[in-house]
Amino acid sequence: MTQMHPTATDSGALLTDLYQLTMAQAYFREDMRETAVFELFVRRLPPTRRFLLAAGLERALEFIEGLRFTATELEFLAAQGSFERPFLEYLSGFRFTGAVHAMPEGCPFFAEEPLLRVTAPIIEAQLLESRIINIIHFQTLVASKAARCVIAAAGRRLIDFGMRRAHEGNAALFAARAAYLAGFDGTATVAAGRRWGIPLSGTVAHSYVEAHDDEEQAFRNFATGAAGRTTLLIDTYDTLRAAEKVVRLQRQLRERGSSHSVEAVRIDSGDLGAQAREVRRILDAGGCQEVGIALSGGLDERQIAAVVGSGVPADAFGVGTSLGVSADAPTLDMAYKLQMYAGRPRRKRSPGKLTWPGAKQVWREYGADDIALGDRIVLEGEHPGGTPLLAEVMRDGRRTGASMPLRAIRDHCRRHVRTLPPDLLLLEERPAAGGATAYPVTRSAALEALAAGAG
Amino acid sequence: MTQMHPTATDSGALLTDLYQLTMAQAYFREDMRETAVFELFVRRLPPTRRFLLAAGLERALEFIEGLRFTATELEFLAAQGSFERPFLEYLSGFRFTGAVHAMPEGCPFFAEEPLLRVTAPIIEAQLLESRIINIIHFQTLVASKAARCVIAAAGRRLIDFGMRRAHEGNAALFAARAAYLAGFDGTATVAAGRRWGIPLSGTVAHSYVEAHDDEEQAFRNFATGAAGRTTLLIDTYDTLRAAEKVVRLQRQLRERGSSHSVEAVRIDSGDLGAQAREVRRILDAGGCQEVGIALSGGLDERQIAAVVGSGVPADAFGVGTSLGVSADAPTLDMAYKLQMYAGRPRRKRSPGKLTWPGAKQVWREYGADDIALGDRIVLEGEHPGGTPLLAEVMRDGRRTGASMPLRAIRDHCRRHVRTLPPDLLLLEERPAAGGATAYPVTRSAALEALAAGAG
Repeated sequence: MTQMHPTATDSGALLTDLYQLTMAQAYFREDMRETAVFELFVRRLPPTRRFLLAAGLERALEFIEGLRFTATELEFLAAQGSFERPFLEYLSGFRFTGAVHAMPEGCPFFAEEPLLRVTAPIIEAQLLESRIINIIHFQTLVASKAARCVIAAAGRRLIDFGMRRAHEGNAALFAARAAYLAGFDGTATVAAGRRWGIPLSGTVAHSYVEAHDDEEQAFRNFATGAAGRTTLLIDTYDTLRAAEKVVRLQRQLRERGSSHSVEAVRIDSGDLGAQAREVRRILDAGGCQEVGIALSGGLDERQIAAVVGSGVPADAFGVGTSLGVSADAPTLDMAYKLQMYAGRPRRKRSPGKLTWPGAKQVWREYGADDIALGDRIVLEGEHPGGTPLLAEVMRDGRRTGASMPLRAIRDHCRRHVRTLPPDLLLLEERPAAGGATAYPVTRSAALEALAAGAG
Repeated sequence: MTQMHPTATDSGALLTDLYQLTMAQAYFREDMRETAVFELFVRRLPPTRRFLLAAGLERALEFIEGLRFTATELEFLAAQGSFERPFLEYLSGFRFTGAVHAMPEGCPFFAEEPLLRVTAPIIEAQLLESRIINIIHFQTLVASKAARCVIAAAGRRLIDFGMRRAHEGNAALFAARAAYLAGFDGTATVAAGRRWGIPLSGTVAHSYVEAHDDEEQAFRNFATGAAGRTTLLIDTYDTLRAAEKVVRLQRQLRERGSSHSVEAVRIDSGDLGAQAREVRRILDAGGCQEVGIALSGGLDERQIAAVVGSGVPADAFGVGTSLGVSADAPTLDMAYKLQMYAGRPRRKRSPGKLTWPGAKQVWREYGADDIALGDRIVLEGEHPGGTPLLAEVMRDGRRTGASMPLRAIRDHCRRHVRTLPPDLLLLEERPAAGGATAYPVTRSAALEALAAGAG
């Protein structure tokens, strides 16, 4: 019995909902071994999201490929009293043998579009549900939020500061990954830099300034203590006086021919825009045009857009809390639903939760200027024209290709977002009527016919 | 060089913000080795929280006690080019040697009250910041949300269903822990049951019903497949007809003298209250008074309170998404701030982020009926009367006592919440004026005087 892939697990195969195991046992007893098709999709977009970015596939595939039940996990299940020996023996030899089709990470998608499809014996497909949602929901959530920050920043640098208020450690790690994927320039989270090579960025905290009896001494010590160029935090006591201290320090360093210099100052509280203008004036008047200004402190994409739109001289933004938990929309209505079993379409009819049956594909049509014109959700096998978004990424339980470096995914994402029509790049809430933007997502006649006939 | 405690790390000592290490190096170079006092507190409560529940201390102490830098972590830091050899050597021998005072888990607390205080050489205390907040913020967030659900449910069973949309795996795990601590009865997350002995609870998904050609057959198979008593999901197609099928099944099981029976039905969509009343009527008319009704599907504490308040016959609630991410308030404004260094009080003066200097204690006064009358924040050493809430939990880097079993913490929490005055147990937003409830939190004259003099 092998261990799960160490990077893909928080707590192994038991990080799932109890009913997945109970249902698996029922299928096992009933000898239901036919192929099922499950699809992962988002029912509705939050009002402040005009598109979502698919993210988390890499980790999801690691999870699927590595899913095993260890002896101690099976002992725990046996001790529950509701699992029978033959089923536990089946689990002891479990490995996923099916296929996975998915949109690539960084691909924009919309409500009701499948971003991942699992085709496998029903027990195997069912056992993936809870963790697949758990993994992909979170990275998709943060990447989609980060994409809005990237739009708002209009080319200025964006750094992820979200670790401390992300929901536990792995959320901090994968939020850093998702934000970088969506176009952020770096993260303050050291472990994320180590794991994925995301550029690390950090400044200094108020406590450092406070621990010194003199702010100017603190600046000097910090700037000359680290290698190279540093960013100083100037709002601990009086931002404008601190900016003057930075000017003096930078001149001294220059005069001494020091290898150290101040690269930027950071303002973290108060009226960021007004202070940034004043600080810029002080720095420029003091001959420190090369010193940049970074802003942070409860920023989200709307505040960034307001700062950028009003011409505030900000060169970089640190975005923390609002990014790491996607504060305005901390969850997506993401679901993983049975669409086919034993070759027959299946359809849930619960009020408000109607699903579209069948194994589906999404085709995106592009205009002559490479701008997306609309999506068409069709049954697998139909060819409506355009580009299909889901590709086979796993077959017979094995990945069909090597994983892509995060930087390549990021480039891929940037190219994808550039194809979105301008209406989708607005930060305002979607129009209330139907909650839809002008971007058309339609269904094929064959899919409509299947839905009409199913269930 | 030892490894970190395996349960306390997502990615070891590098799961921190870069500036913590940069500042630590600056302190090291400047030979700043004096004792610092940092305190963890929440600046403001969200409008929908009248109190918070302290949670996460157990994991925080594991983290502090186990914090080490491994050789590969140090190699990564060395490769960054901004860390010098003597500092990395210092890190290679790092262990926390200080003291920690904290409120016990499950203790209600309010804005600006320290719930944890670290007293240690400044490098050691500084290096804890990012992860301490990351750990305690999340469990406090979820426990505080869960406490509202417990109030709303008024004694009915509450089960955590939040795994899939929690923010990655560890959030799912620790949300289950925090919810149980605050009074939930169980969780669907198997790994949380295994790790802390939290009672496991699970039903069945729509996909199981859909995978069968006949709903009644699906019910029969599921109820007789698992050991003992099961909960059936009845809203896949037509809730009331499904309830009738449950009645027939339960009678058949009874007539056959089967060891299996239906314990409850679950309704997961539509008008839960209206359906529950109809289903109750059908079950009772069919002689199935013993079959309970569980409700789920996007529930939060307000919907639970509405259901309970209008006399809907619900016996249990599954609470998922809104609990696991604390959806109405997905973050707390929690901070870890320097209050003393080298025996002198320190105070941050940034706009809107003023802190109270000094090492502090919180005393809670109780009336004759054991109801809390108010809290007083004082300097350590003052004795205003009442009960001090922070106790020493770590000394010289070692825990002063054994960790408490989760069930004991839960009992402790229940007793604590029972002491809160009725005003704090309301679910409505706090009064707008000052955002405060009638519960008084005051500061001692000595603390006010210290603040007036500091910085």
